[in-house]
Amino acid sequence: MRTIIWTGSLTSCPNPVKGASTPEATINVGPIGTDRNWKGIGISLLVIAVVLSLIGLSIVLLSKDDGGKPFGTPLTLDDLFEKTFQIHDPDAKWISGEYVKTPEFRPQVRELNPPEVSDSVLQFASWGVRGQQLVYIFENNIYYQMDVQSSSWRLTSSGEEGVVFNGISDWLYEEMVLHTQVAHWWSPDGSRLAYLTINDSLVPTMFLPRFTGSLYPRGKEYPYPKMCQINPSVRLYVVTLDGSALTTELKPPDSFEKSEFYITMVKWVTKERLSVRWVNRAQNMSILSLCDVTQDICTKKHVMTSDKWLDCQREEPVFSKDCTTLFITMPLKHGGSGTFNHITMISNQSDSQEVNMRHLTSGSWEVSQILAYDEGTNSVYYLSTETGATQRHLYSISNAMETECLTCSLFKSACSYYDAVLSPNYQHVLLNCRGSACCSNTITKCFISRLRYLNLCDFTMYLYCSSSCHFALDEEKEYPLLLVLDSTPGGQAVSDRFSLSWDSVLVSSNDVIVAHLDGRGSGCQGQRILHEVFQRLGTVDVHDQLTALEHLVKLPYIDANRVGVYGKAYGGFLSTLLVLSHPSVLRCGIAVAPITNWRLYGKLIQDFTNNIVTSYSYDCSHSVIIRFNLNIPLNFLIIHGTADANVHFQHSAELVKLLSASNVNYTLQIFPDEGHNIISVRSQHYFLSSVLNFFNRCFEEGYKEDD
Amino acid sequence: MRTIIWTGSLTSCPNPVKGASTPEATINVGPIGTDRNWKGIGISLLVIAVVLSLIGLSIVLLSKDDGGKPFGTPLTLDDLFEKTFQIHDPDAKWISGEYVKTPEFRPQVRELNPPEVSDSVLQFASWGVRGQQLVYIFENNIYYQMDVQSSSWRLTSSGEEGVVFNGISDWLYEEMVLHTQVAHWWSPDGSRLAYLTINDSLVPTMFLPRFTGSLYPRGKEYPYPKMCQINPSVRLYVVTLDGSALTTELKPPDSFEKSEFYITMVKWVTKERLSVRWVNRAQNMSILSLCDVTQDICTKKHVMTSDKWLDCQREEPVFSKDCTTLFITMPLKHGGSGTFNHITMISNQSDSQEVNMRHLTSGSWEVSQILAYDEGTNSVYYLSTETGATQRHLYSISNAMETECLTCSLFKSACSYYDAVLSPNYQHVLLNCRGSACCSNTITKCFISRLRYLNLCDFTMYLYCSSSCHFALDEEKEYPLLLVLDSTPGGQAVSDRFSLSWDSVLVSSNDVIVAHLDGRGSGCQGQRILHEVFQRLGTVDVHDQLTALEHLVKLPYIDANRVGVYGKAYGGFLSTLLVLSHPSVLRCGIAVAPITNWRLYGKLIQDFTNNIVTSYSYDCSHSVIIRFNLNIPLNFLIIHGTADANVHFQHSAELVKLLSASNVNYTLQIFPDEGHNIISVRSQHYFLSSVLNFFNRCFEEGYKEDD
Repeated sequence: MRTIIWTGSLTSCPNPVKGASTPEATINVGPIGTDRNWKGIGISLLVIAVVLSLIGLSIVLLSKDDGGKPFGTPLTLDDLFEKTFQIHDPDAKWISGEYVKTPEFRPQVRELNPPEVSDSVLQFASWGVRGQQLVYIFENNIYYQMDVQSSSWRLTSSGEEGVVFNGISDWLYEEMVLHTQVAHWWSPDGSRLAYLTINDSLVPTMFLPRFTGSLYPRGKEYPYPKMCQINPSVRLYVVTLDGSALTTELKPPDSFEKSEFYITMVKWVTKERLSVRWVNRAQNMSILSLCDVTQDICTKKHVMTSDKWLDCQREEPVFSKDCTTLFITMPLKHGGSGTFNHITMISNQSDSQEVNMRHLTSGSWEVSQILAYDEGTNSVYYLSTETGATQRHLYSISNAMETECLTCSLFKSACSYYDAVLSPNYQHVLLNCRGSACCSNTITKCFISRLRYLNLCDFTMYLYCSSSCHFALDEEKEYPLLLVLDSTPGGQAVSDRFSLSWDSVLVSSNDVIVAHLDGRGSGCQGQRILHEVFQRLGTVDVHDQLTALEHLVKLPYIDANRVGVYGKAYGGFLSTLLVLSHPSVLRCGIAVAPITNWRLYGKLIQDFTNNIVTSYSYDCSHSVIIRFNLNIPLNFLIIHGTADANVHFQHSAELVKLLSASNVNYTLQIFPDEGHNIISVRSQHYFLSSVLNFFNRCFEEGYKEDD
Repeated sequence: MRTIIWTGSLTSCPNPVKGASTPEATINVGPIGTDRNWKGIGISLLVIAVVLSLIGLSIVLLSKDDGGKPFGTPLTLDDLFEKTFQIHDPDAKWISGEYVKTPEFRPQVRELNPPEVSDSVLQFASWGVRGQQLVYIFENNIYYQMDVQSSSWRLTSSGEEGVVFNGISDWLYEEMVLHTQVAHWWSPDGSRLAYLTINDSLVPTMFLPRFTGSLYPRGKEYPYPKMCQINPSVRLYVVTLDGSALTTELKPPDSFEKSEFYITMVKWVTKERLSVRWVNRAQNMSILSLCDVTQDICTKKHVMTSDKWLDCQREEPVFSKDCTTLFITMPLKHGGSGTFNHITMISNQSDSQEVNMRHLTSGSWEVSQILAYDEGTNSVYYLSTETGATQRHLYSISNAMETECLTCSLFKSACSYYDAVLSPNYQHVLLNCRGSACCSNTITKCFISRLRYLNLCDFTMYLYCSSSCHFALDEEKEYPLLLVLDSTPGGQAVSDRFSLSWDSVLVSSNDVIVAHLDGRGSGCQGQRILHEVFQRLGTVDVHDQLTALEHLVKLPYIDANRVGVYGKAYGGFLSTLLVLSHPSVLRCGIAVAPITNWRLYGKLIQDFTNNIVTSYSYDCSHSVIIRFNLNIPLNFLIIHGTADANVHFQHSAELVKLLSASNVNYTLQIFPDEGHNIISVRSQHYFLSSVLNFFNRCFEEGYKEDD
């Protein structure tokens, strides 16, 4: 696949032809120069702009355009399963300072099967960084081959299925800490491999049953530390791949030695230095170390504490080449608006213990990612929300503290949410436009418009509405409203990042107005909003969703009798609370894989809450018991995969027992042996059509009652 | 509780006052005499007629009578949970030839805890037949105490939890063979105990998951032989309780020694003789033995074979005192109508091998139970369907082959379904009226009437209809129809036996007409009808239900647009087939704990069928694939307890996967950690109200569409 290079004008929602190859072109306006012409840089980037999401969007817009419908044909569920409606990510990477290319391979099949292990399943395999270096994992042990011809070495021997994990994550590290299965890191020159050993031997195991596929189906057990249960222990090792296979441990800081801790980030800085972040279990203290692997010595570079909890603990610090200076984001107070994450430069001279800290940015917005530090020009590149919490633009800040937005005026400002990767020599940047607030000017071609941007109290909201209803709004027609709760504490539901999902179908085909809301507890808007939910999950956030609903149903174009709510996992927790405690506001609700009792959940922040669905403490001062209101006919659909390893089916089982005992009506849709995310296409299609049918039926009934 | 003796006239649906004590009286018209005045006996029984079901019925009828409603108030779901609506069974037993009494006890608590077993759960305990003899079971081993003071003996040691069962049933024997947990039998004088040892060590185990009740719920495994899987082996032992605890095995007949077999019946005939029935796994051969336990010798008394399968294998034979004559039921051909179960007398002289067989009864009806053989009068007492397949009356047949119905004209013939237990001296009989076809004359007081008795082709049917709709029928109003499939092959859905269930609520409160049907495969109507389903389950029986439906919807008072079906277990199998393959006939259907794939089911008749829901062989000649019809809006509700040990949740899981993949709409209602029968009152209430709501909603929608 060739890299797609975007050339068209975005404001007019361009017309790629379905199936035709995308034209490749280069706007070559010169590299980032040493003359520090920042204005010039902004408009002269070698923009290898893979504007994927906009392409996806425009395909949706136009591929079905038959010319007879001025606003395009409505989006259907089946459309979502068409290849042309998927976002195509070429996964472009920098290979050198100048080239982005996808190499071509001649296939050659070799079996990876170490002699010690018979009939074992390969858990992981990948190339190293040098030559034909190869690493792979069987039975939780790491194997290494210098090249494809040479014999394999077993680098670890402690691996034990479901108990001790070498180089790969257990459930907790994959889902909650590293967010990847990979728990090993190559040094830049390929001479060393750092890896975690995660020991789950003291962690209680959860049983996932299996129902289908054989006469006597067997489930599986796996370690899952629920609240107050023992966590896995973790150790960081570095093995030298020069033939000696010398393995040394990088010890945690003294203060963590005897308590439960996480390793949330490992990053090679040079071929002999490694940065590591250690975080205590309560996640209110973290230590960033720089370790010299030739001497097995780790030095504390920075300690952070919080009276609530620390976020951004997976953030990779950006170091100067000599490792004396590093850049991370840190909360910085901004007047009365609370604290916001900003770039902080921490430096010390190698021969002194004195540390200098300097904040490079400030304001009531956040730096979302520090990308690079170019020592040649002494400038730092980063992404931030300076133009608005829903946006991500690329900025640079120079030695002279001059800030420049490099993407704000690109493409006539049609793109407002970027990813960016700088080339190794900082001369080029790979831009990926993830979405925009466009289409407000091109509503006639965009079936989804962000109709209103509301700023109520402390939270932000997007309303999605079909273009036909956009015009009809003036006619004082009333539309059903669906509140989608698809975020978690620290997450962001309202952004310009493009997505196309089942709720787009409701908007486009069924004239439903869909609301997304970031209230208290959401991220990217400063720590004050984020920390509001500390030890009161499901209280202030539910309150904000309710406030928004109450505001919305007063709008003339919204039908207060046809309001629904949808949420998954944490959102399922919230939608369950909303539906059960405020049935008068809501006609119908769906909770997918809802967390219904925090004691049953494995999570990082131990002291977050003691909430269960039946009763919870509200605002730490008075408690609220959900009163099931039997008089209001409620449509409540619970959806859960029985093999959900993240939010166990247990949650829904306990919930429906409670509902049955309280004589509350509900409908349960299970997906046998499906996990937290329903992967099989057939099940997913059925899942989504169930959701769509549920809301359509519910809104239809509400409409009849209106008459 | 005192025995209730019925005195009133039944034809007028009498008025017991709720809460008041029931009057006790005796119609004492003299015992069964030796003068063999059979006519006299018929009307002069000491009828301790515990007409429980009629009492229950009349309570239902009248307890809510406020005088203002001529036909009584409609039955509600909540009524079913009221004590006054339960059938009260005094569980009366003969103690001597003359007395039926419930003894009074002074409570005295003693702990049963054998020293060898610590922290073990008592599985069973009961008194013996002599003095204070006591038997109890811990960890699958039998313990015996001569009296409450003496120390306990352990009679067996092979017991192993979930593997080897002594004196109690494993899952298969409890659910499918003996239909009781008790797998031991006292000799009449209490000097010996016969017991089964059931060895499940080679039987595959099924896992029942658990979802609720703890942080890390654990399920349980138990042996469950599915089709073609290894059955448990079974051995019969007799232990002498005289102090020696001598244990001897009663060996199976030679022909069974090396194959899988069941022991389906054990009955002591004298204090030294035991009758046993051995049946091969295919259930087409059975051997009835008489065993002399003093010599450990078993003698074949009768061998039965069938080219289909043998039913009635739990029937206890009735022996003469010297054991030379026995009475069992056997199929007897009746002209062109096929064979029917009739009493057969088998006798041989103790000193000869010559066997005489003689059929005592004959006709196109069946003997349902042989009760007793009175050698003094040389007469046999039995229950039969001679007056109709839906009825059970008590008969006697004399030496002279004179048959007499002893209950046909009792109570002005208002009761038509009796249970009967003769006193040990045959002078008295304890009659239990289980129901009647009454109320056809007293329709104004009975909210349920059996409206029509149809005899279509080979099957019988009852329609249940509220009294109000009974009258409205003349007004040409149309009623919704619900077909209830609550039988299994060999069972009987249409009988005069009284029952009050959720479908009575639909009839009474919602003016639904409920149909029960016995088509091919049903019992009590001869072997030809029964054996029609051999190797074609779900074909001819589905065909008969469909034929009935097609007949019914043509009736002027039935609304063809509002037809539903309900079935559980085997009935769930049928209702699933009906709903999925014939959605044009049915608006809605419920399948509770449906069997959806016979390979997943543990059953006795191995070669019954190879059916699964997706495709099955029809009539052994052509095959039928269910075509999911997506165009017809179908309401299909599947209900299943996740801990169902009989029909595993696996069945519904496989079904919903299939339905999802085929994009067929369904609703699933699960009951977490509930078994095949939902026991907890709250869950049961929720279960039933879900069923009622489902049908009411479905029929309401159909009604709207009619308009």
